[in-house]
Formats: sequence, structure tokens, C-alpha cells
Amino acid sequence: MVTRIEHDMLGEMQIPSDVWYGVQTLRAKENFSITGVPISHFPHLIKALAMVKWSAAQTNKELKLLEEHKADAIMAACRDIIDGALHQQFVVDLIQGGAGTSTNMNANEVIANLALSKLGKEKGDYQHLHPNDDVNCSQSTNDAYPTAVCLGIQFAAEPLTEHLESLIQAFNNKGQEFNDVVKMGRTQLQDAVPMTLGQEFEAFAVTLSEDIDRIKEACKLLCEVNLGGTAIGTGINTHPEYASRVVKRLAEISGKPMIPASHLVEATSDLGAFVLFSGILKRMAVKLGKICNDLRLLSSGPRTGFAEIHLPPMQPGSSIMPGKVNPVIPEAVNQTAYQVIANDLAVTLAAESGQLQLNAMEPLIVYNLLSSMKMLCNACEMLEERCVSGIKANREQCSRHLDNSIGVITALVPHIGYANASRIAKTALNTGSTVRELVIGEGLLDSIQLDRLLSPESMLAPGERVS
Amino acid sequence: MVTRIEHDMLGEMQIPSDVWYGVQTLRAKENFSITGVPISHFPHLIKALAMVKWSAAQTNKELKLLEEHKADAIMAACRDIIDGALHQQFVVDLIQGGAGTSTNMNANEVIANLALSKLGKEKGDYQHLHPNDDVNCSQSTNDAYPTAVCLGIQFAAEPLTEHLESLIQAFNNKGQEFNDVVKMGRTQLQDAVPMTLGQEFEAFAVTLSEDIDRIKEACKLLCEVNLGGTAIGTGINTHPEYASRVVKRLAEISGKPMIPASHLVEATSDLGAFVLFSGILKRMAVKLGKICNDLRLLSSGPRTGFAEIHLPPMQPGSSIMPGKVNPVIPEAVNQTAYQVIANDLAVTLAAESGQLQLNAMEPLIVYNLLSSMKMLCNACEMLEERCVSGIKANREQCSRHLDNSIGVITALVPHIGYANASRIAKTALNTGSTVRELVIGEGLLDSIQLDRLLSPESMLAPGERVS
Amino acid sequence: MVTRIEHDMLGEMQIPSDVWYGVQTLRAKENFSITGVPISHFPHLIKALAMVKWSAAQTNKELKLLEEHKADAIMAACRDIIDGALHQQFVVDLIQGGAGTSTNMNANEVIANLALSKLGKEKGDYQHLHPNDDVNCSQSTNDAYPTAVCLGIQFAAEPLTEHLESLIQAFNNKGQEFNDVVKMGRTQLQDAVPMTLGQEFEAFAVTLSEDIDRIKEACKLLCEVNLGGTAIGTGINTHPEYASRVVKRLAEISGKPMIPASHLVEATSDLGAFVLFSGILKRMAVKLGKICNDLRLLSSGPRTGFAEIHLPPMQPGSSIMPGKVNPVIPEAVNQTAYQVIANDLAVTLAAESGQLQLNAMEPLIVYNLLSSMKMLCNACEMLEERCVSGIKANREQCSRHLDNSIGVITALVPHIGYANASRIAKTALNTGSTVRELVIGEGLLDSIQLDRLLSPESMLAPGERVS
Amino acid sequence: MVTRIEHDMLGEMQIPSDVWYGVQTLRAKENFSITGVPISHFPHLIKALAMVKWSAAQTNKELKLLEEHKADAIMAACRDIIDGALHQQFVVDLIQGGAGTSTNMNANEVIANLALSKLGKEKGDYQHLHPNDDVNCSQSTNDAYPTAVCLGIQFAAEPLTEHLESLIQAFNNKGQEFNDVVKMGRTQLQDAVPMTLGQEFEAFAVTLSEDIDRIKEACKLLCEVNLGGTAIGTGINTHPEYASRVVKRLAEISGKPMIPASHLVEATSDLGAFVLFSGILKRMAVKLGKICNDLRLLSSGPRTGFAEIHLPPMQPGSSIMPGKVNPVIPEAVNQTAYQVIANDLAVTLAAESGQLQLNAMEPLIVYNLLSSMKMLCNACEMLEERCVSGIKANREQCSRHLDNSIGVITALVPHIGYANASRIAKTALNTGSTVRELVIGEGLLDSIQLDRLLSPESMLAPGERVS
Repeated sequence: MVTRIEHDMLGEMQIPSDVWYGVQTLRAKENFSITGVPISHFPHLIKALAMVKWSAAQTNKELKLLEEHKADAIMAACRDIIDGALHQQFVVDLIQGGAGTSTNMNANEVIANLALSKLGKEKGDYQHLHPNDDVNCSQSTNDAYPTAVCLGIQFAAEPLTEHLESLIQAFNNKGQEFNDVVKMGRTQLQDAVPMTLGQEFEAFAVTLSEDIDRIKEACKLLCEVNLGGTAIGTGINTHPEYASRVVKRLAEISGKPMIPASHLVEATSDLGAFVLFSGILKRMAVKLGKICNDLRLLSSGPRTGFAEIHLPPMQPGSSIMPGKVNPVIPEAVNQTAYQVIANDLAVTLAAESGQLQLNAMEPLIVYNLLSSMKMLCNACEMLEERCVSGIKANREQCSRHLDNSIGVITALVPHIGYANASRIAKTALNTGSTVRELVIGEGLLDSIQLDRLLSPESMLAPGERVS
Repeated sequence: MVTRIEHDMLGEMQIPSDVWYGVQTLRAKENFSITGVPISHFPHLIKALAMVKWSAAQTNKELKLLEEHKADAIMAACRDIIDGALHQQFVVDLIQGGAGTSTNMNANEVIANLALSKLGKEKGDYQHLHPNDDVNCSQSTNDAYPTAVCLGIQFAAEPLTEHLESLIQAFNNKGQEFNDVVKMGRTQLQDAVPMTLGQEFEAFAVTLSEDIDRIKEACKLLCEVNLGGTAIGTGINTHPEYASRVVKRLAEISGKPMIPASHLVEATSDLGAFVLFSGILKRMAVKLGKICNDLRLLSSGPRTGFAEIHLPPMQPGSSIMPGKVNPVIPEAVNQTAYQVIANDLAVTLAAESGQLQLNAMEPLIVYNLLSSMKMLCNACEMLEERCVSGIKANREQCSRHLDNSIGVITALVPHIGYANASRIAKTALNTGSTVRELVIGEGLLDSIQLDRLLSPESMLAPGERVS
Repeated sequence: MVTRIEHDMLGEMQIPSDVWYGVQTLRAKENFSITGVPISHFPHLIKALAMVKWSAAQTNKELKLLEEHKADAIMAACRDIIDGALHQQFVVDLIQGGAGTSTNMNANEVIANLALSKLGKEKGDYQHLHPNDDVNCSQSTNDAYPTAVCLGIQFAAEPLTEHLESLIQAFNNKGQEFNDVVKMGRTQLQDAVPMTLGQEFEAFAVTLSEDIDRIKEACKLLCEVNLGGTAIGTGINTHPEYASRVVKRLAEISGKPMIPASHLVEATSDLGAFVLFSGILKRMAVKLGKICNDLRLLSSGPRTGFAEIHLPPMQPGSSIMPGKVNPVIPEAVNQTAYQVIANDLAVTLAAESGQLQLNAMEPLIVYNLLSSMKMLCNACEMLEERCVSGIKANREQCSRHLDNSIGVITALVPHIGYANASRIAKTALNTGSTVRELVIGEGLLDSIQLDRLLSPESMLAPGERVS
Repeated sequence: MVTRIEHDMLGEMQIPSDVWYGVQTLRAKENFSITGVPISHFPHLIKALAMVKWSAAQTNKELKLLEEHKADAIMAACRDIIDGALHQQFVVDLIQGGAGTSTNMNANEVIANLALSKLGKEKGDYQHLHPNDDVNCSQSTNDAYPTAVCLGIQFAAEPLTEHLESLIQAFNNKGQEFNDVVKMGRTQLQDAVPMTLGQEFEAFAVTLSEDIDRIKEACKLLCEVNLGGTAIGTGINTHPEYASRVVKRLAEISGKPMIPASHLVEATSDLGAFVLFSGILKRMAVKLGKICNDLRLLSSGPRTGFAEIHLPPMQPGSSIMPGKVNPVIPEAVNQTAYQVIANDLAVTLAAESGQLQLNAMEPLIVYNLLSSMKMLCNACEMLEERCVSGIKANREQCSRHLDNSIGVITALVPHIGYANASRIAKTALNTGSTVRELVIGEGLLDSIQLDRLLSPESMLAPGERVS
């Protein structure tokens, strides 16, 4: 293997000639191999890191803190990375010590070497352009890294909300398709009162659409960044104009309304915005989980369950029971939801363990947030395409359930009182008589009144009381 | 014991004559004794229940669904309860089956009996005013109960944010008091760069003040209620004008900007707003936990720790080690924070287990949200009064730490480069030499330059670069 | 209010004359009011504290570290407390700072004052018998408190396992009662193959009975205690024979096989045994939750659900829907299970935050373990008495489900192959034909073969293959 | 791409000719892409699957349920896979619906095709040897898969306990190396009483060694398997002798003492053993987390922290602060610990959501257990090699702390009483006087007594009391 030699404060190391990262990345790669998942798994983060470095270089150039040719080379390198270059060179494991220093140095080194090549220099020839002195100029890991994370999460939120939108649309489509399917609603798994299957699916759409609003609000909170605060938020080693300028540049480059945090010392140690964001992902997971539980219940059967809907069969359901088809897609979403809930705990634990001026556990937060977003994104797409869009109503079963039910008695309560209604319901259950028979038999209401009141459609919405 | 007899669909029961609740409450009291914590533990919830019942009675009266004298008696009873009457009659355990039916019936029965007494009738004489037919008129547990919870949480949020405000003020006061105490900042528990103790305490204030905004936003989401949706959100058994009117009344009575949810079927089964609220409480707990960890670290010692601050001694620290004083108040807050984080998990689990048109686990959510709010409220008060307000800086120790530190080398990086600085830092650490000596010795900077750059105060903020 | 004056290192305080605790307890009572739940809520812990103090007093007397009359008075006081005296004097909130010092001092002070009264002295007259010097002699909170907790949990485990045994018995009874009810088993909520309802209930009994073994094993681990280690496990201020003697005494007094931990420094900071114990409670909660989910599914209906069993009605199910009966008891157990799972997280968080020679968060662990045990105990009793013992099979529905099912095709796979069986199952589902008709129609098996193979009973166990 | 055609109940698909899996695996691969982590990530599971298939084939051959040449080909294929062949053909995502059916079918198909090639047949030529009819003969996913998981976890436990043993040894070595370094112990971050640094490191070894016992016990519980229960534990489609024989074969093949579960219906739906196992991994994570927190505290500094130990520097600590070295290895372990705690929650959630005769969420449990074990294994290795083995004591600092401390006063309590000692400690703290000076000044003890009592070494263990 052809190698070059680089050194840092701990000494020198042999680096394979063809890699674009440097000595500090290599040390980190050797130090950490916990998850096997490298930074390159999350391109949104890499893109965000490159944008932070670009905005810093441009600001440093404007403030004459970096020579023009260096700044230009760095910015060009960043643009290449944003366009997809060298992502495989981001090799450090997501679970890493050092509060993100290794991720930041991985970016600094790859960018430095790419910039060097643009200047016609060799990789590792850092006297001409240095990962720390130049690429990291006016920055610390402690401001550059969280800023990139805030931005990367916003990028990852885009496909997530898009797939969520599609899923919502699919539920809405089914809501319309099923708006004439009257069925029994259930509370606590017990027969309650009538509704339409369309209302049930619409409700899935409505509940998820609220999450899009919450995600967007939470993204806004992630626009407040501590870039310019350097090591602990005091802005040591920065030009007085640097902080405000660099965030403005970052806003321009990223197209996101980034602004400086109001108190940089606070912003450097606090990861509350990530806890909140994770909480919103958890909430979305809870909702997806509840919906998939419902889809599994409603499609239970085919002969001994609720069987009010049919999910599209996606694969044979059993290695031993022929013909069995299982709700595999909702099951996979349920598991995804549990994982996201668990990941939220990891985020919480990491956030709580910040100490003094920094939270050393931030890489774990990043890993879990980005993983959860990716998994939720995949789950939404899978659920929409491989399940919801193919769901069919079992209209016969819905009708049968409605006809058999004694829950319609509820509609009579304003007319015969709760106590009478209770008694009749109990009798119906024990004797097998219908509600109608019993009410007429007792002379409480007549046949014409009952026709109107017990029409299922009249029970789907508020209505005028029979005088 | 003198008793009266009441009956429901399951039969009759003897009720002690002096209790204001009725047969359904008594059944629930006997059925559930899990936690030992009754509804009366949370007066904000009782107040909210009474307001919901009041607004329903008034609306029913307006729509002529309830006779005037009954409605008036119910409203008068509700006002008494809001003013504090009969809270001890809310006896059902917070962990209860039935999705809150027992809590709702406890309210219905107490209000019915109190209203009966206002009409000059005996308790239990429900032919004159009935808990279900009259007090619960146009309602189901499934809309009345969650609406009351949404309101009750908002009431509970008031003392919480007040105590949080006081705590923030206490931290801000210390921030000012300590704004001239220069000390070493630390990242990853390692000496970093200088800051003031004032900045450190200010950051505590800033980070908590964000939570007040989040709590207020989350309260707004709790203003959207499903009142009027009755059993499953279809509004069965309600007058077409009922839903919009009753929520308007509730807004007037409660003074909160309550509005009807846009999709009542969705709103009846979805508890997402509670998950979000719980997530914000968890975030607040995480922050309080981090702050208390810091207070314990900063006050560690007295002789072998950081010892940069003194916490006020609140009690002897040890049954065996004389003179030992422990950071007992922050420790209690840390434990509170852990409990709140755990309670958030209970909320999450309960929310995820909703099925079809209702979530039967809502009582657990209510229990945990209200408990967490109460505990956080107590913790904020305790932390402010018994700890933060009495914290003193150990100015000598802060100075000593600053003088000994080699972290000041960071301020020289823009002038001597990262590589030189690394080397010098390493030498300083190994030899005990000071940074100053080594830099002058190597001729990198002169004494005048160093005076300016190594002045700790110049390192507390961004600054002009030495040319 | 008549008071006496006591003082400690922080000064003096007025103590109401009639209370048996002293100045340190009073400070703690004032310092901590987070949960509102005092130590007296958990008599098993108080009993255990008294046993620890008794064994220490006896050992100190044997080793002549405590005058005989003092030791005797202390031991007599401890016996009174074990018998139930003065439990209401244990007033400190369960969430407390100080790693249990306040709980230990509450015990020391109550015992000292009770012992003083036995010596004919006034409360607070500590020159004759001192809470620290005498009652706490040879102890630190850091060994006395965790030892008492280890013992208290074992006491609390007794009623828990008893109630669990009764519940298991109830499930076994139902297993026998239902052993002739053949029904369809379900996997993934889809019809699978036949089984008996008795097998289903037996499985509930079997799964819970494993937890009794696990609880007993975990109790054994709690027999290893650090008593004698004093402040940090080095045994400072103890007689060389103290540690081994005192644990022997404790074993005699408690009737539990208590032994000294092998490494007292480790045992003083490690709370791993509590984490494990909590994990076992969580596992039990998970199982109870799963069982109650099943009970709710199996009793869903009455007309649109599975409806294979009837739960005994415990209370009217709805304030608006007459005749509705809900599975309120399983619902309450489900919520209890979620709370126990959440409490396990609190235990985990507290255990992880131990620092150096002690875990200051132990009180939170104690609070959550004892709460979870109490709630599980209540839940088992409630589930047995108010639900399981009254469950009835819906034999008609079970038969109907079996007759309708196409899951019986599985029994033919060894004879006609998986591929043929799949095809036939699919046709049956689409056409409404029976499996039998289709198999005969295709000439795959004859009627006699099918009679034998499709007899549901032949499918309940392994069987000889038709040649 | 050259393809072959395979079909299942849903129709036919084109399979690339070079892949060894078949149509059902391909469907699953397309259906599920949530995590991006395929089965092949966990070779212990693949090995276990092959052993289960081998034992089934052998038993089927013995019972004449499978022709000899087929059984032999299957067994040969299994042996190849156990030896490492074709692991990359296990392609299904770990998060999958279907309760493991896809994993089981992936194994069935790869084994079938490999066996076919051994019989000189083409891949996909299933008429000669069929994935379901032959490889899966006498099995269901619902027994074969959980059995493989029970076995796979045991395999994964081997490297885990080995790396844990090495870590324990490293701590023990340091315990010996540091057994003469006397220092101050700390409780609640406050100076307590003296101990040796050796005791502190020994305690780390002791606490972890208990986990090895727990893991081994938990592995024993995983030896009870439901193989032979087939679909729901009733053993449908198995020979009466199959269950006992196949488990015996599996025990022989695997070298693990596998036994049949006592109640196969229970064993098929219950995942309690996995919850317990996960709880033990969590406990281990909690302990590793606590230890790493301590290592970070003890090495805090270099100038403003505890600084009693030096961790070996592994990488430059900062992109801006030269010379800074951070405790990156313990930080990475802390994050691993948090992830394992979070994964335990995922396991818990999945376990709780089992329904009726099966738990459809088992794949999530498998994913989290195997991930946690892998991460813990990596973390132990990293911690040992890159941190613990290179830790050095800062002997000067330990001595300095001991000399400055007033915690030594504890040793005088048996001689001067708690009240006197408290007062003197307080004076020492306020005035800066030493304990010695004050005690002599008050005439409480003389110089010779103090020499003996205040010798730090005399405080490291129980001792005779000065008369």
C-alpha cells in the first residue's frame, strides 16, 4: 500500500495515499468501531458540514483572516462535497468520543486535501493549506459541529415530510373511497356507535398532518445556531464581526433562515432543541404505531377477526400454514415506531449528561436523530406504497356488524333516558332480541320514530332531537 | 353507618349517606386501588371538570335540552366545586380502567347530588336531576374527560411556569452577581478556555427560559378540544349547534382560548398533544438535571473537587462523617428529573396503545402529566429557595484555576498556528513551565503581545486579531 | 404548640413535643416535598430499618462498643417498630437528596427517642442516648440504608409472590374449565390452527409462574449486603469483628439468609442488584400487559369482535352508551404495567448516575421499586378477584370460528404439499368453498382421509402421519 | 442480468441466477428496507439457523419424514453455512414484518438451493428439494426462528463474556498496580474518607464480574426452546417423537444444553427470556456507564479538575484548543451504554406487544439484542485496549488531596463523639485550621493518639478502637 505520512500532537502515522482524510480521522477510525455505521451513512450531515465550512471560509476571506486563494479553494472543495463528491471519505463511526471533534476533523481534512488538489498540491501538504488553521479557521468543533447538525436535520426533514405527505394523501384517498361504508365504531374494543370507514381513514390523515406542522416548527428552532461561539460560546479567537456574518452566509448558502443564538454560551452546552425534535419524531412514531395497530385489528381474520378491511398481500405469511397472509407491512412499521421511541430515550439520556460548557454525548444524539428520521422516512414510503394504497373495504362485513350491533341504542338515550336504554341493552344482549323489538314492545317509541332514529346514517353526525 | 341505596345497570349498592358521589363512583373506588392516589390529589383537574360540566349545562339550557331549574342548579354546583367545595369527594384512583368513565361519573354524581341539594332534594334522588341524563347531557366521557384534561393541564401549567420564572430570576441574579468572576470553562471535563461564572449562571437562566415559551406553545395546542364529539367524535346525540356553542362557553368560563378540534373523530382517539406536552416536561427535566449536575460538580470538594461555588448547607450530610455537607437539593432535583423522564415513557406507552376510536389508557397519561407537573413545580421552588438563591462564588478558587491553566494557549492560535500551540501546550503540561515562558523562549511572540493576548479578560469575547 | 429544642451542626430548631423524630428529620421534611409520599407509605422498609438498627445495637453490645442499657433500650424500640409502632413518624419524602441520610436519620431519631422513653428520659435528651453516637454506632447511612432496602424489598416480595400465586391458580383453574373448548389459534391476528381455550389460559399461568422463580432468585442476590462497610466500604470506625457479626445477627433477626458482600467498596457504590430486580418486575409487567391485551382482544365485541370469552362486568361502561360494559380491570392492569415499565427506567437512570464511592440517587430507586411492587401486588389481586375468576367461555362463538376457518388446511400440508395447500387456501378464501370440497374435488385426498385429518381434535397435538 | 423464475402463492418473480435465495426472500428484501442492516450483519444468528435446520433434517430422516438423500444434502448445506458459506445471501432487513418468516424463509431457500447444487440440480428446481416441504419439514417459523435466536444469542454471548473478562482483568491489574496509592474517597462528590486507588479499580473489576455470572444464568434460560411446537405450540404436523428428538439433536450439534420448553403453547408466544436477557445487558451497560463516568471525573483537569489519574491520550482533543486531550474512549463507552439502555426499551416495547399465540415483533427484539451485544463487545475491547490498560495514577495529586482533606475527622468520631467532630470540622472549614490543631487545642485527644488515629493507612480498614 502506498502511503503518505502525517503527524499530529500524538506523533506521526502512515496514511494510505488514496484516502482524502488525514491523520486525525485515521486515529478516530481506529479508536471507534462501535456501531459499524460511518458518517457517510447520512449524506445530509455531510452536506451540512460542507456548507458550514464554506460559510466560514467565505467569512474569513471577507474579514481577511484567510488568504483569498486558500478560501477559494476551500469553498470550491465544499461545493464539490455538497454535490456528492467524496462522501465515502467520511469514515468515522457515528458513536464516537470527543463531542464530534472527529467528525469535524474528518470534514476539515477531506476539505483541506480536496482544496490542496485544487491548488495543485499533494494530499497532506498542509503547509499550503491546513485542516485546522485554514479550514477550521475561526471555528471550534463545539460550534461548527452542532451548527452542521442543526442544518443536516433540516435537510433530512425534507424527504421525511414529503413521504409523510404522500402517506397522508393515501389515507385521505381511502377516506374518500370509503365515505359511504357505514360500520360500527369501537371504544375500548367494545362496540360503540356507528361511523363510516371513511371517517376512520380520514382521522389517520388528520392526525399525521399535525405532525408536519410540528416538524416545521421544530425545524425553525434548529435555525438558531451557535456558530461563532467557538470553544465554549465566548467567541474566543473570532473577529467581532465574524459571528453575525458567518451565520448570514450560512443562511444564503443553505437556503434556510439560520440566525445566531441569543446567548452563545448557553447555546453551546444546551441540546434542548434536539430533545424537542426527537420528541416530535417519537410522537410521530406513536401515531404511526397506533394507526398500524388499527390496520392490523381491522384486517384481523379472515374468518375469526374483525375483517372490515383487506390489506394487500405482500408475501406468503407462513412457512407452515398455506394461504396465510399476514399484515407484514404494518408490523414492520410498528417495529420501526418502537425503535424510534427507543432512540428518543437514547437522545434523552445523552442530552441529560451534558456537563458544564459542552455535551460530550452529542454524537449519540446525532446518530439517533438521523437514524430515526431515515427509518421513519422509509416506513412512511413502505406503508403508503405497499399497504395503504391497496387497502380494500370489506363492505359486507361492515354492514353485517352494523346490523347485528346493539350499540344503536345510544341514539335513543335522549328519547327514552339512560336508565331505560341500559335495561333494554342488557335484555337485548341476554335474549338475542333486537333493540327495536324491545323498545316497541315496551311502548317507549313507535315504529316511525324508530325508523328515523335507528337509521344508521342519522347517527353519523349531530342531529335535531325528536320532539 | 347510615346509607342510601342507589342502583345502576349492574344492580344496587348501599352508599354512605354523607358521601356526595354515587353508585358508579363507589364501584370504581372498589374496583381500582392501584396507586392510592385519588383524583382529589389534583385540584386543577377537578376545577376543569366542573367547568366542562358548567359549560355543557349552560349550552343545554340555551338549546332547551335541559330544563332551566336543573341547568341552574348544575351550574351553581359547578361554581361551588370550582371554588373548592367537595374536592375530597373525588375519590377514584388515578389508575383506572374505563378510559376516564369513572372520573367523569365521579364528577357527574357529585355535581348531581350537590345540585339536588340546591333544589332541596336528597342525595341520590336522581329522578329530579340525573347524573347521566342531566349532568352528562350531550356529553360522553370520551369528549368531556379529555376536554377537562386539556384544561386542567393548562391550569397546572400556571404555577409551574411561575415557579420556573422565579428560578430563572434567581439564576439571572447570580449571573449578575458573578459577572466579574473569571474562571476556566471546561469541555468534556477538561480545562478549556476562560469565561465568567456569571456567564455560566446566565446560561442556566437562558436555557430554562426557552422552556417557558415551549410550555406556552404546547398549552395553545391543548386549547383544541373534542367537546361535542360525544362517544367517538361523530357527535351522536348532540344538537347541531351544541359543539360550537359549548366550546365557546367553556372558553368564557375558563378564560382560556378553547376552540373545537377540526376533526372530532381524530381528536377523540388522538392523544398526540399530550405526548408533545410530556415531551416538553421531559425536556425541562433534562435541563434541570443538567444544571443540577453542574451545580454538584462546581461545588464538589471542599478540598478535593472543583469547589468553584458554595451551595448553602441545608442539613448535616452524613450520619458518620461529621462536618460533611452534601448537595442535597440538587440531588433531589436530579431524582425528580429522572422521575419525569420515566413518567414521559409511561405517557408514551399509554399513547401508543390507543385502539380504534379511543385510547383506554388516557387515565395513565393524566396521572403522569399531572404528577410530573406537580413534581417539577415543587422542584423549581425547592431549587430556587433552598439552593440557588444562597449560592456563593469561591473567588479564590476560580482565580487559582485560571492562573494555573494552560488552556489560555488557545488565544495564541491565530498568531502562532495550531501546530506550534499544540507543541507548546504539551511541553507546558510535561515540564510545568508556563505557556508564557515557552512562547517567549521560542521567540514566537514578545512580552507585550502576550500581555495583551493572555489577559484573561480579552479571552471572554470575540476580539480584534493582532496583526 | 408545645415544642422542644434540638440542634445539629446547622443550628437549633423547635420540634413539636409530640413527634418522635428529631431535628435532622425535621430539616429533611422541610427540605423535600416533591412527591408527597413519605417513608411511612412503605412499612416493609420501616421494618427493615428497625431490624438493621437492632442487629447493629446487639453487635455493638457484644463488642462492648455500646453500654448494655443503651443497647437494650434501642433493641426494644426496634422491636416495637417492627411490630408496627410509630410508623407515622417516618415522614421524609421518598424523593430526597442525601443518598438516604434523611431516611437513616429519621430511623435513628425515632428509635433514639423511643429508647429514651424506655429509659425514662425525655424525647430529645440525647446526652443519655444519641441518634448518631448510639443508634447509628458502627454504621453509616451508606451501609445501613442500602442494607435495609435489600431487606425491605424481600419483605415486599412476599405479598407480591403470594398474590401472583393466586392469580396463577386462577388462570390454571380456567385452563381446566376450558380444556374442552376447541377454538382457532391466531398468529399475527390472523387465523392460524386449532387449539383449546384451556391451552390458552394454561399458557398464562405457565408464563407467570416463571416470574416467581425469577423473583426468588433475585431476592437471593439481595441477601448480599454491605453492612459493616460504613462510609465507603472500607469499614472505617468499625471493630474488626463487627461486619461479620452484624450480618449474622441481621440474618437471625430477619429470617433471611443475609451475608456480607465480598467486596465492600464495590458493594457500597453498586446498585446492580436493584437494576436486575427492577428488570424482573418490568418483565412481570410486560407479561401481565400481554395477558391483559389478550383478554381484551378475546372479549372484544359483543357483536363485532372476537367475543370468545366474557369478562365479568364490573361497572357500567359508558356515561352515554347504555348497556356498554368495558374490560376495565384488564385496562387498569395494562396501565399499571406501563407505569412499572416507566419506573424501571427511573431505576435505570438513577443507577447509571452513581458517582465514585456512592450513588446519591438511591432514594429514587427505592421509591420506584417499592411503588412498582405495591402496584403489581394490587394489580394481581384485582385481576384475579375482579376478572379472571369470573371469566366465562363463549362456547358457541369458539365453535363457529372453528367451523368457518380455513386454517385447518395446515393439517393437510404433510399429505398434499405446501404448494397445493397454498393454492387451495387461496381458492377457498376467494370462492367461499370449503377446504374439504376443494381437496376432494381435485382428488388429492379422499373423504375418509379428510375425516381423520380435518378432525379439529387431531390438530391439537403432534400425531402420526397418514401414510 | 441472467435470471431464473420462481413462484409462490402471490405469483412469480424473476430471480437473478447467481443468488442463492429465492422468491420469498426477494419479496421480503423488496418489502422491507427500514434499517439497511441485513441478517448477514449477525453471523451468530445465521450459524444458529443452520444448526436448527440441520437438527430438523436429521430428525426428519430418522423418523422417515424426509428421504435420505434430501436430508443428507440439507445437512451438508447447513454445515457449509455454519463454516461460513453464503452468509452474504442472508439479505433481509432486520426490521421486518412477519414474525421472522422472512428470515426463516431466507434460510430455507439458501439451504434448499445449496442442497440442490449438492444433488447436482439447478437453483430453483424445487421439485427435487423444496424450501418449505423439505428444509422446513416439521417446522414453522414460529418454532424454528425463536429457537435459532435463543441459540444465536448464546453464541454472541461468548465473545461478549470473553471481552468482558479481559476488561475485568485489566481493572484488576490496575487495582494491584495502584494498591499503595492512598487517596480521598468521595461520596456525593464531597470529600469523604480515605481509601486506595487500588480499591477503587478493584471495585470496577468486581462489579463487572458479577455480570458474567448473570449472563451465564440468562443463557441457561435460553436453552429452553419451543422447537417442535410448530405454528402455535400444539405441534401440529409433527411426529409424536419429533419434538424431543430434534431438541436432542440440536443440543448435540450446537454443544449447548438445549431442552424442550415444558409448555410449548406458552413458549411460542412468550418472549420473557429475551426481556430478561436484555435487562442484563442493560445492567452491564449501566455499570460500564458508571465506571466511565468515574474515569472521566477522576481524570478531569489537567489543572482545574480531580486529576487523580491520567488516561492515555488517543487523539488530539480539539480542533481549536491546542494540547487538549479528551477522555474520548470513556465517552464512546458512555454513549454505547445509553444506546444499549435505549435498545432495552425497544425490546420491552416489542415484548409487550405480543398478541395471542405469537409475538409478531420478535424481529425487533432480535435486532436490538444482537446489536447491543455487538456494541458492548466492541466497547469492552476498546475500553480495555485503548484506555484502562494505559491508565496511570497521579500519585502527587492523590497525596495532596489526602493531606488537605478534613474528611479524616471521621476517624475521630468513636473517640470524641459526633457532635464534637461536627463542630471541629466546621471550624476547620471556616478557618483553614487543620483538624489536628483544633483537636489538640481543645484537649480532646493528645498528639500521640492523633498520630495513630489520623494515620491515613489506619483508616483504610476496620480497626481496634482506642480505649
